[in-house]
Amino acid sequence: MNLILLEPTDFTSETEVLLRGRRLDHVLRVHRAKPGDSLRVGVINGRFGHGTIQHISEETLAMSIRLEADPPPPLPLRLILALPRPKVLNRTIAAATSMGIREMDIINAWRVEKAYWESPRLAADNLRLQSMLGLEQAGDTVLPTIRLHKLFTPFVREELPTTLPGKRALLADPHANEEAPRHVTGTVVLAIGPEGGFIDREVETFKEIGFEPVHTGARILRVETALASLIGRLF
Amino acid sequence: MNLILLEPTDFTSETEVLLRGRRLDHVLRVHRAKPGDSLRVGVINGRFGHGTIQHISEETLAMSIRLEADPPPPLPLRLILALPRPKVLNRTIAAATSMGIREMDIINAWRVEKAYWESPRLAADNLRLQSMLGLEQAGDTVLPTIRLHKLFTPFVREELPTTLPGKRALLADPHANEEAPRHVTGTVVLAIGPEGGFIDREVETFKEIGFEPVHTGARILRVETALASLIGRLF
Repeated sequence: MNLILLEPTDFTSETEVLLRGRRLDHVLRVHRAKPGDSLRVGVINGRFGHGTIQHISEETLAMSIRLEADPPPPLPLRLILALPRPKVLNRTIAAATSMGIREMDIINAWRVEKAYWESPRLAADNLRLQSMLGLEQAGDTVLPTIRLHKLFTPFVREELPTTLPGKRALLADPHANEEAPRHVTGTVVLAIGPEGGFIDREVETFKEIGFEPVHTGARILRVETALASLIGRLF
Repeated sequence: MNLILLEPTDFTSETEVLLRGRRLDHVLRVHRAKPGDSLRVGVINGRFGHGTIQHISEETLAMSIRLEADPPPPLPLRLILALPRPKVLNRTIAAATSMGIREMDIINAWRVEKAYWESPRLAADNLRLQSMLGLEQAGDTVLPTIRLHKLFTPFVREELPTTLPGKRALLADPHANEEAPRHVTGTVVLAIGPEGGFIDREVETFKEIGFEPVHTGARILRVETALASLIGRLF
């Protein structure tokens, strides 16, 4: 946790907050902070700054807040992600958010197990928590927008194409002939398939709407590793 | 598991293996394979190919093996990693191995908690298992060499410098002024610090022996995310 994220409801006045629960626990157990200590804070979807501890107990943490800087700019990348296994989903949302991705579309694919769509981890509360963990890691404040698309075809054939003009659309595909490009300018839309990859018909659909299949080497990487490696390469 | 790694002791003849335990379980529960099915296999530190299932039960899996290809070339990168939290260590070893890193030095640093060095996850057996998980993910066969250095100074001041000539030495440091370079040629030695980073004195020591501090952007990334992102950028 490289900063403490504040919700609007945490504020008891314009410059004071009162925290309980997960964030208080973290400050108690990890920071082991005491009155007078200064902690890095950021308001969700807002500015950054420092909080000075006024009072801390096992029940509550009171801080006075000074906000002084804007969050880092977003990564110009929209992620189209085939729904991974629930455990992997959590890690991937947090990692993607920590790298500055602010738009994610989680989609169905042939090789996505139907049961994954029943996972409680897809609940808005959990997606928000995982995003917050990513922001707290990165030192960012802006929550991503995460959309769920349980039907592949309507989303990829109809909705997605209208958003592509002016953007570079890439499909991560271990079997692609082309290497992923380096140091691109402008906005990228990056699609990453499920374990085992998109099936040929899905790859064809992406190609038809303008996606370029690209690979990242001879090795097959886990989704969060592939995503980080591609981002390092693209930007 | 994108391939099944075979140990020399699995072979019952030059072309036949008998498996039990973790790999049998995976073939039963995930592949749901039956006699006659073909699976991708690789011999640890050796070649790749296919195994044809001759017999499978809850107790054993017998396959006939055909080896036909060499593993992908290693990534020309040696990783110097401050010992992370035990849970993070496992993920990082597996991720590093999956990206083709074949040399890792795990070192101490001021901000590494002493208790981490007592973790059973540092046992050779666990490091080997995590490496195998990385190889199975990537479709690779060559285990990395992982060395542990419980003393920072003797390793960084005396041992490490003798191995640096002809290589590019980079230190991942969120506070560095320079961006990480792109698309380098030759071999890289990459040092990554603990949570909270190397302290100033440690950064100075690395600089004195020829490391260039480089950052990867405005955000602070988890070690395995930072590593993947840097690799995507460097190679």
